[in-house]
Amino acid sequence: MKLSNSFFYTIRENAKDEDSVSGNLLVRAGMIKKSSSGIYMIMPMGKRVLQKIETIVREEMDATGAQELLMPVLIPEEVYEKSGRREAFGANMFALKDRYQKRYVMGPTHEELFTIAATMKGSSYKDFPYNLYQIQTKFRDETRPRYGLIRVREFIMKDAYSFDVDEESMHVSYMKMFHAYKKIMERLGLTYKIVKADTGAMGGSLSEEFQAITPIGEDVVVGCEHCDFSSNLEITEVVDQASDDTAELRQMEVVKTPDAKTIEEVAAFFQKAADDFVKTLIYKIDGKTYAFLLKGTRELNETKVLKLLQANEMELADFDEVERVTHAKVGFAGPIGIACPIIMDREVTHMKNFIVGANQTDHHIVNVNVKDFEVSMIADIAQVKEGDICPVCGHRLTFAKGIEVGNTFKLGTKYAESLGLEYQDETNKLHPVQMGCYGFGLGRAMAAIVEQHNDASGIIWPASVAPYQVAIVVVAIKDEEQMRVATALYEELSAAGIDVVLDDRKERPGVKFKDMELIGIPYRITVGRGAVDGKVEFRARTASENEEWLISETKAKLMEIVK
Amino acid sequence: MKLSNSFFYTIRENAKDEDSVSGNLLVRAGMIKKSSSGIYMIMPMGKRVLQKIETIVREEMDATGAQELLMPVLIPEEVYEKSGRREAFGANMFALKDRYQKRYVMGPTHEELFTIAATMKGSSYKDFPYNLYQIQTKFRDETRPRYGLIRVREFIMKDAYSFDVDEESMHVSYMKMFHAYKKIMERLGLTYKIVKADTGAMGGSLSEEFQAITPIGEDVVVGCEHCDFSSNLEITEVVDQASDDTAELRQMEVVKTPDAKTIEEVAAFFQKAADDFVKTLIYKIDGKTYAFLLKGTRELNETKVLKLLQANEMELADFDEVERVTHAKVGFAGPIGIACPIIMDREVTHMKNFIVGANQTDHHIVNVNVKDFEVSMIADIAQVKEGDICPVCGHRLTFAKGIEVGNTFKLGTKYAESLGLEYQDETNKLHPVQMGCYGFGLGRAMAAIVEQHNDASGIIWPASVAPYQVAIVVVAIKDEEQMRVATALYEELSAAGIDVVLDDRKERPGVKFKDMELIGIPYRITVGRGAVDGKVEFRARTASENEEWLISETKAKLMEIVK
Repeated sequence: MKLSNSFFYTIRENAKDEDSVSGNLLVRAGMIKKSSSGIYMIMPMGKRVLQKIETIVREEMDATGAQELLMPVLIPEEVYEKSGRREAFGANMFALKDRYQKRYVMGPTHEELFTIAATMKGSSYKDFPYNLYQIQTKFRDETRPRYGLIRVREFIMKDAYSFDVDEESMHVSYMKMFHAYKKIMERLGLTYKIVKADTGAMGGSLSEEFQAITPIGEDVVVGCEHCDFSSNLEITEVVDQASDDTAELRQMEVVKTPDAKTIEEVAAFFQKAADDFVKTLIYKIDGKTYAFLLKGTRELNETKVLKLLQANEMELADFDEVERVTHAKVGFAGPIGIACPIIMDREVTHMKNFIVGANQTDHHIVNVNVKDFEVSMIADIAQVKEGDICPVCGHRLTFAKGIEVGNTFKLGTKYAESLGLEYQDETNKLHPVQMGCYGFGLGRAMAAIVEQHNDASGIIWPASVAPYQVAIVVVAIKDEEQMRVATALYEELSAAGIDVVLDDRKERPGVKFKDMELIGIPYRITVGRGAVDGKVEFRARTASENEEWLISETKAKLMEIVK
Repeated sequence: MKLSNSFFYTIRENAKDEDSVSGNLLVRAGMIKKSSSGIYMIMPMGKRVLQKIETIVREEMDATGAQELLMPVLIPEEVYEKSGRREAFGANMFALKDRYQKRYVMGPTHEELFTIAATMKGSSYKDFPYNLYQIQTKFRDETRPRYGLIRVREFIMKDAYSFDVDEESMHVSYMKMFHAYKKIMERLGLTYKIVKADTGAMGGSLSEEFQAITPIGEDVVVGCEHCDFSSNLEITEVVDQASDDTAELRQMEVVKTPDAKTIEEVAAFFQKAADDFVKTLIYKIDGKTYAFLLKGTRELNETKVLKLLQANEMELADFDEVERVTHAKVGFAGPIGIACPIIMDREVTHMKNFIVGANQTDHHIVNVNVKDFEVSMIADIAQVKEGDICPVCGHRLTFAKGIEVGNTFKLGTKYAESLGLEYQDETNKLHPVQMGCYGFGLGRAMAAIVEQHNDASGIIWPASVAPYQVAIVVVAIKDEEQMRVATALYEELSAAGIDVVLDDRKERPGVKFKDMELIGIPYRITVGRGAVDGKVEFRARTASENEEWLISETKAKLMEIVK
């Protein structure tokens, strides 16, 4: 492309409404433009990058034997009611009525439609396995869109679905996709970790996430200082450690604690550490109230709770409800005498003589022990902390942040059962089909690449996804020889299959260099005064110095580098 | 692709809920599957065709220098309010609220967003012209979706938009697209006509349609038996013919016409032909009532009326309103004494001594003349009929039916003015930008191709868009030699860049032949008993006989044909 005659722009100032490096750089590079909250236009320069990511994803999907199709955006709401996911998605689904008042949703993910599509194929066990995918625009009405293309409401996703007769075969299909994802992440130049994760609203028996590691990541990726253990924070087990504490159980006692409500205030009052406390958190879960007991230094892990109770939604109980179950003002909840079921974190079972709220305003109880109250359930419901013990090897856990770019699920028979996808075995007996599903966010990958590949001057695209691999910058467009050399090189490289952009704009060379750096072109050829002597300058985006090249050797050298 | 190990199906029976040849064949060929009214899944075999159409469209767009981008589906409703199109689209736009009650629509066409996007580029006259396009899914809540992919509610469209400083330059941009569209239609193997059409809700000064000619077409394409004239029925002028009638004006007279209301009944009563009558039609247009006068043999052309009155919506007035303005029962409306403005078709000015309703129940007036009543406007508001006079050469008009696959518009400054897209001329004076827009329906093109290319056995894809160019059918898959030859050929042809499908399913040969014919593969190689003698059979989809080919020459011959 010749820039002089094209739709090209960059923005000098930082974007005021972007809260991430990638969002800011993509906007400034003229690659995306915000249309409304969490909804972006992908501008021409960005579309080229997205198209290259799409091609890589498509190639790796096709290599697994998966077949591409295309599902609609508008899906009758009843389809999600049938699978039981209408409620699970709730307000996260955009919903609307057509002119005849029929209810539709905008597809947030397409397990249901793929299951329905699969019913078209024969139902003999011999018709399996197969794998279908699409690259399509999806919609989720996020509460709080943010970080440029990372958390958006409209996004392009590749979603694949595998169909098998049994778990063993499904595992084979799953692993094919798993390996394809590794290849995709590598071709995109992403540094990543694969972590086990919660299956959530998807259902199924296994979920793994492909997390691009970057400080802006919204997910905490838990690793180990010693072994290969890797897991999403949401599901990482807190290792159960029996205490060797031989302390005697003391007699509990109610103590007046005026003006002390938070753990910190109460700890200060008693001159004790936070881990001598057991905190009581009161939640409303799918309409029912529960109290959760945790060591004072722990946070509740909501994902574990939802899974434990097989529930969809949880939120902290409001003040009225807290006062109702504790018969006290907020801040004095405790396990003794509370009027709702108690779920206790496993770790508390090893604690002795701890302090809890008294369910009485301005009072706590000291020297409480597990024998002093009844609980409905004891389970691992706490969040792990950095430095906790690795569930695999016993060394220390480390934390990193990641952007979930891809995920893979073993869905089992959940969708096949609810939507009637069955196969006949050798004896004509019917069974539900085993499914897997595999998502990959193309726009999110684009943002993650920028988060991992940038510097003060802008983006540094890996050559595999750069909008153009090479930029030819003409220093003085009025110099006939420079223009002749640059144009000839442009045509020569283009003909050789290299994506080249020719910066022949009427701008100062400094502006051109800055722009080519901002938009992240990996290699630059500068055609300047040396042109008359048969020389140009070469510079990689990551280098700090120019190299002098002979014009005659430029094509061959670039072919070598780009390849 | 090897069919034995893939997601492949066909359907033997006709689709009960498809009302077109293409809809039925695409469903039966496993290319599409209805998801809900006017909304389809594009299944793997169909996706391959769609992808090839997409590639052809993209190539021709890129060849004009247009740059691709991607717009969102969800667009804030206020954007269409600004351009004044929210009302014009009305219930045809899918509309919804997000979780914060903000109103969105699902983009039916993207003039507004492209105009907004264009503001990012510099505003000097030197920054123009440029041309942007996207290939994207669009949504229109059609009253009555029908004909498979022809009239749907969710569809893939290529839409391009050109930006120029003046009309002259805009015309150059327009013609580039116009020629690209001709190339696309030709590469897709479509027989088509280019017709002038109404600019409708789009606005602007010129609209041309690329109509694929087929009996199922919803548009009437008007042509001429003699010259090149071509126009959409909606806007074709009724040629004004001065009558050479020297008849004297007679005295008008009210006549009782009991039980005669329709033109036919009244004509029978008076023993006169329908063209001795002038009919009076009463419409409600944007809330106001009008009477229209037309020769008894003519139909009203609503497009002409809407344009004439610059109105958005019109419908026949209800009975109450008719009785209010005529002071009579429905069926006796006429121009004399009616209580609303009259718009008269130009043709009526040449009529004499005609019959009209008397605005009095069971009465008509004979020998009425134009001097006997007053009209607000005289204009060409009638529909042309086949056999009418060509406005260009005076010969007879012919009618054909067409599917509107593409359209091109000169939009002028409508969107630039309402959305603030301006440029500065050499003297720094500001002017609104001249725009053009260019739509092309990919799914509709796919359906139109099938409408034009099919026979009793199924689809006959042009090689340019066929899902596979060649099918290799193995007669007996248990025959090792046949499988060896077929597989070797499959690999040889694939390596040579030909799209080949290998039908190695455990099915009878007849089933395989039928399937390959139904899905419309242009060329078939049958590997059967001749394989041991180094021979295969070749057959074009359109031929009725096999040709015997040497295996050794097969690749070369196919390369020749496919190219």
